[in-house]
Amino acid sequence: MKHEELVKRCVKLAERNVRDGQAPFAAIVTRGGEVVSEAVNDGKATFDPTAHGEIRAIQMAGTKLETTDLSDCELYTNCEPCPMCLAAIHWSGIKQVYYGLSIGQQAEFDEMPQELYEAFRTGEHSVKLHDYSGKVDGAAPFRLEERE
Amino acid sequence: MKHEELVKRCVKLAERNVRDGQAPFAAIVTRGGEVVSEAVNDGKATFDPTAHGEIRAIQMAGTKLETTDLSDCELYTNCEPCPMCLAAIHWSGIKQVYYGLSIGQQAEFDEMPQELYEAFRTGEHSVKLHDYSGKVDGAAPFRLEERE
Repeated sequence: MKHEELVKRCVKLAERNVRDGQAPFAAIVTRGGEVVSEAVNDGKATFDPTAHGEIRAIQMAGTKLETTDLSDCELYTNCEPCPMCLAAIHWSGIKQVYYGLSIGQQAEFDEMPQELYEAFRTGEHSVKLHDYSGKVDGAAPFRLEERE
Repeated sequence: MKHEELVKRCVKLAERNVRDGQAPFAAIVTRGGEVVSEAVNDGKATFDPTAHGEIRAIQMAGTKLETTDLSDCELYTNCEPCPMCLAAIHWSGIKQVYYGLSIGQQAEFDEMPQELYEAFRTGEHSVKLHDYSGKVDGAAPFRLEERE
């Protein structure tokens, strides 16, 4: 299938997900022109804040292909990935992503992804991070891993 | 339990995870001083590239509390969260995070989280994003959601 058709399929899957009472997001992972996984955002059904379409499609692809290295795969999504999903794409090794709506365009409906990108750009997060590295030996598990 | 004890518990869980053949990461979600969920990175076992300790702890907390809104919870982790996990924390609503090893300190063992933060700061990602918004109606699922 062509890139455009696969992005359109994500849009259709996202519309079906809305009719099913879920959020308007879907994603597809392909390898060598074949669909490996299709997934939707099922956060409302599963109470999982991380249940974005891209996360689900990557999880399913890893399980199906029995590897966390998806560097020979591509990802399609109806919306440009949020920072969580883009970072997940980095971890998966996927290098090519095709989307149907930009973060800027999506802001008309949901400003959160754009605000998140801005927080990562400036480093000013609403989440408060408390550094306890002076009080605990946080490197111990890494040293143990090197010895094992 | 005090913050420091909970970070230390994450370090212990991460060490146990290494001895179990997994990656050196663990996280805990609490609410009102009580532990809601404890989780480890189980990516090697599940072939899931997104299986970081924080992601797993948030997923488990959402399922247990039957809500995606964890804004009254706190998160503890042996390592400062990577961008995927920090964005997941944003989506969960968690506002307080306590960690035992900074991203800079972790770079001695794994440079990827630091490199990812730098990519988000500059906007220069190794992932190639292809914008098909001029060719597909990517906003259709959002308009449908507004009508439903």
